[in-house]
Amino acid sequence: MTARAECVALDAADPLRAHRAAFALPDGVVYLDGNSLGALPRATGARLREVIEREWGVGLIRSWNDARWIELPRRVGAKIARLIGADGHEVVCTDSTSLNLFKVLAAALRLQSLHPRGSTAGRRVILSERGNFPTDLYVAQGLTDLLGAGHELRLVDFDEVADAIDDRTAVVMLTHVNFRTGAMHDLAGITRRAHDAGALAIWDLAHSAGALPVALNAASADFAVGCGYKYLNGGPGAPAFVFAAARHLTSLVHEPFAQPLAGWFGHRTPFAFDAGYAPAPSIDRFAVGTPSILALAALDVGVDTVLAAGVEALRAKSVALARQFVELVEAQCAGLGIELASPRDPDRRGSQVCFRHPHAFAVMQALIARGVIGDFREPDILRFGLAPLYVRHVDVWDAAAAVAEVLAKREWQRTEFQRREAVT
Amino acid sequence: MTARAECVALDAADPLRAHRAAFALPDGVVYLDGNSLGALPRATGARLREVIEREWGVGLIRSWNDARWIELPRRVGAKIARLIGADGHEVVCTDSTSLNLFKVLAAALRLQSLHPRGSTAGRRVILSERGNFPTDLYVAQGLTDLLGAGHELRLVDFDEVADAIDDRTAVVMLTHVNFRTGAMHDLAGITRRAHDAGALAIWDLAHSAGALPVALNAASADFAVGCGYKYLNGGPGAPAFVFAAARHLTSLVHEPFAQPLAGWFGHRTPFAFDAGYAPAPSIDRFAVGTPSILALAALDVGVDTVLAAGVEALRAKSVALARQFVELVEAQCAGLGIELASPRDPDRRGSQVCFRHPHAFAVMQALIARGVIGDFREPDILRFGLAPLYVRHVDVWDAAAAVAEVLAKREWQRTEFQRREAVT
Repeated sequence: MTARAECVALDAADPLRAHRAAFALPDGVVYLDGNSLGALPRATGARLREVIEREWGVGLIRSWNDARWIELPRRVGAKIARLIGADGHEVVCTDSTSLNLFKVLAAALRLQSLHPRGSTAGRRVILSERGNFPTDLYVAQGLTDLLGAGHELRLVDFDEVADAIDDRTAVVMLTHVNFRTGAMHDLAGITRRAHDAGALAIWDLAHSAGALPVALNAASADFAVGCGYKYLNGGPGAPAFVFAAARHLTSLVHEPFAQPLAGWFGHRTPFAFDAGYAPAPSIDRFAVGTPSILALAALDVGVDTVLAAGVEALRAKSVALARQFVELVEAQCAGLGIELASPRDPDRRGSQVCFRHPHAFAVMQALIARGVIGDFREPDILRFGLAPLYVRHVDVWDAAAAVAEVLAKREWQRTEFQRREAVT
Repeated sequence: MTARAECVALDAADPLRAHRAAFALPDGVVYLDGNSLGALPRATGARLREVIEREWGVGLIRSWNDARWIELPRRVGAKIARLIGADGHEVVCTDSTSLNLFKVLAAALRLQSLHPRGSTAGRRVILSERGNFPTDLYVAQGLTDLLGAGHELRLVDFDEVADAIDDRTAVVMLTHVNFRTGAMHDLAGITRRAHDAGALAIWDLAHSAGALPVALNAASADFAVGCGYKYLNGGPGAPAFVFAAARHLTSLVHEPFAQPLAGWFGHRTPFAFDAGYAPAPSIDRFAVGTPSILALAALDVGVDTVLAAGVEALRAKSVALARQFVELVEAQCAGLGIELASPRDPDRRGSQVCFRHPHAFAVMQALIARGVIGDFREPDILRFGLAPLYVRHVDVWDAAAAVAEVLAKREWQRTEFQRREAVT
C-alpha cells in the first residue's frame, strides 16, 4: 500500500502541482466536493472587483459596449468549447443547466417533427436513464406535459439505454457521468446507436466539462448542456452552457421558435426592438434574457483555470488519484462495511469515486467534522470528487485514512443524525 | 424658469439627499440611465468580497447551509415584495424577466384551461400592447407557437387595451410603465377589467419596481415579473423576480406542471433526489435551476438601497424631478424641434421622461459626449431616466442645459452617425 511519504513525493513530481496555488483553499480542509461546487480561483476576487468598481461603477451602461459585456456569453462559451470538443461558435453561456436542457430538448423534438428520420413519423419519446440527475428528468417531464400529444419520457437503467433506443425514440437524453456513482456512458457509442435508429442525442456534461476530455463533434453529438459551478470553478450557481451542433443551427435557421424560450438576447437584432421575434442565426438563439455579468465574469476566471492546466493532463491526474483512493480505502477499510459504488475501470468512470455504506449519511457527517469534505447522496452513497486541479495525492491519502478511522472507531455513531441539505 | 441656484437649494433640502452618497457615481457624469442599468451601490463591492472570499472560498459547499445561500432567492424576494404591494411569500428572485414571464404566462393559460371563467371555455388569447417591451412579446410568441391549438398573441395600442379585453382573452399581459415613453397603465383598473371579463392579469414591473409604489395585492393582480438591474440597482443582468398571488399558489398546488419549466430548485424536496417532479407548494415552484449566489448577493444590496429610502419618498422626488425637467427643456428648447414623448400628467408616467427629435440618435451621442448619459430608443426617442435615489435637481438642470446647447449649436450634426448598441 502507498505510504503517505510516497504521496508527498508524487505531489512534488506532479506536473499540475503549480495549479493548486491558483486556488484559495482553506487550511485544515481536504476538499473532495469540487464536483458539487468548485473551489475559488484566487483571481476571481480581483476580476469581480474590476467588473464592479470600474466597469459597472464608472462605465455604467456604456460597459455593455466598452467593456464588451455583450460578448461575454459567447466569449466564455468559446473557451468551454475547447474543453468539450466543440467549435467556438457552437457554445454559449446562459441561464442554468435545467433551462438549457429544456431548450435543447424542445429543439430536438421540433427537429424530429420537421425532418422525421427513418421510416417512422411522429417520434415522441425522450429516452433517459432512471438514475439520471433528477432535474434533467423534471425538465423532460415538464416539457412532455406541456406538449402532450403522446410525448413521453421513458426511463431505463444505466446499462439498458443503448438497447432501448427504438423507432419511437425521438431523442436520447443522458448525463455523461452519473452524479451518484460517477459511472460514465459511452458518449460516442450511444450517439451512434441513436443516430442509427433515427434518434438524436443530447448530453448533459455537468460532471464531465473541465474534468475529462469530451469530444462532442467527433461523436456527432446533437446538443449538449453543462454546468459552470462544478469542475469549471465558476462559483455557486454559475451560468451554465449550451451546445448545438453547427448543422442544427443551420437546419433550424428558418424555424423561429425551434427553441421556444424566445427572448431578446436570442433575437437577430435585439436593439432594433422589433415587435416580432426573429432568432439569431447562431448559437445566440439559445440565449433568452439579459445575462448576469458578475456571474459570467466569475465563470470566465474559473474556465481559465481549467484551460491553463489542459484537460488531458487533468484527466490523467484524476485517474491516478482515483486509482489510489480506491486502493487505499479498500486496503484500510476491509471488513468495515464499505463497498465501491463507482466502476473500477477508469474508462467507465468520471472524476469522482463513490462508496456505499449503510450509514453513509452519518459517516459523511463525521468526515466533514474531521475536515474531509465530500458529500452524501441518497440512499447510501459517500461521494468523493477528485478535482485534479487542486486535489493532491496527499489529500487522497488523508481522506482514505479519515474514512478508515471513522469506520474503525464507529465515529459515525456519535454523529448526530440530522439531515442537512447539500447541493450536488 | 428655475435657476441653477434654486436647484442647488432644492437638493440641500431634499430629504433623500443622503442616499446619493450610498452610490459610487463617476465624476463629470450626469447619469440619467438608471432605468436601463442602476448605479453601483457603494456596499456592493464589500458584500461580494465577503461572499467570494469567506462564503465561497472558505465555506465552500457548506455555505449553502451555513451562509444560508439556499434561502437567498426567497429572502431577496421578500424584500422586493415590500416594494410592489405583495406578501413576502409571494415573490422569489430567479432567472431573467423573460424566463419568468414564460412561467407565469404558461401558468395563467393552464389556470384558464383548468378553471374556465365566465361562459366561454377555451380562452386562448394573450392580449398585450403593440409597444410592449419586445422580449415580452417574443416570450408570448414562443409560448403560443409551442402550445399551438389556437393560442395566439393579440396586440393593440396602448390606450386600446382595456376595451379589447373580451371573452376570448385568457390573460392580459402588460408592462406597467412603457419602456419607450414612460407611459403608465392603470394597473388596478385594467386588472379589474380583465377579471370582470374572466381574464387574468400579468404585470411586468421592469420600469416600476423600486421607482414608484406598486400595489399588486390591492389590485388583485394575478402574476407579475420584474427586473433587478434597473431601479433595484442589482448590477448588469441581475436576477429578476416573479410574483404569484397566494390564491394561485393554492389553486395550482395539485397541478405539478402548471409552470412547465420544472427544475430541482422548484421541487418540493430537491435534496431527496426523487425521479418524479413534485413542485414546492409555494412560490419556490417558479424557481428552476441553481441560482447565481454572486448575482443574488449584489441584488440584495441593491434592493436594500431602495428600502432604505422608501418607495413613497422616491416617487415624490421622481415626480418633482420630472416636472422640473420637462419645464426646463421646453423653456430652453422652444423652436429647436424637440417634443415631449411622455405623458405630461405624472399620474400617467413612470420615472422617466422622453422627448422626440428627428435626429434623436445623434443628439443622444452628443449628450453622452458631454457626460449626460441617457439613451436612445428607436425610432426617434431621447430617453432620460430619473432614478430618484441618486439623481439631483442640479443634475436635471445640467441635463436640460446640455440638451439646449446640443440643439441650439446643432452639435448633433458633428456627432458621427454610428449606431452603437445600448441595452434598455
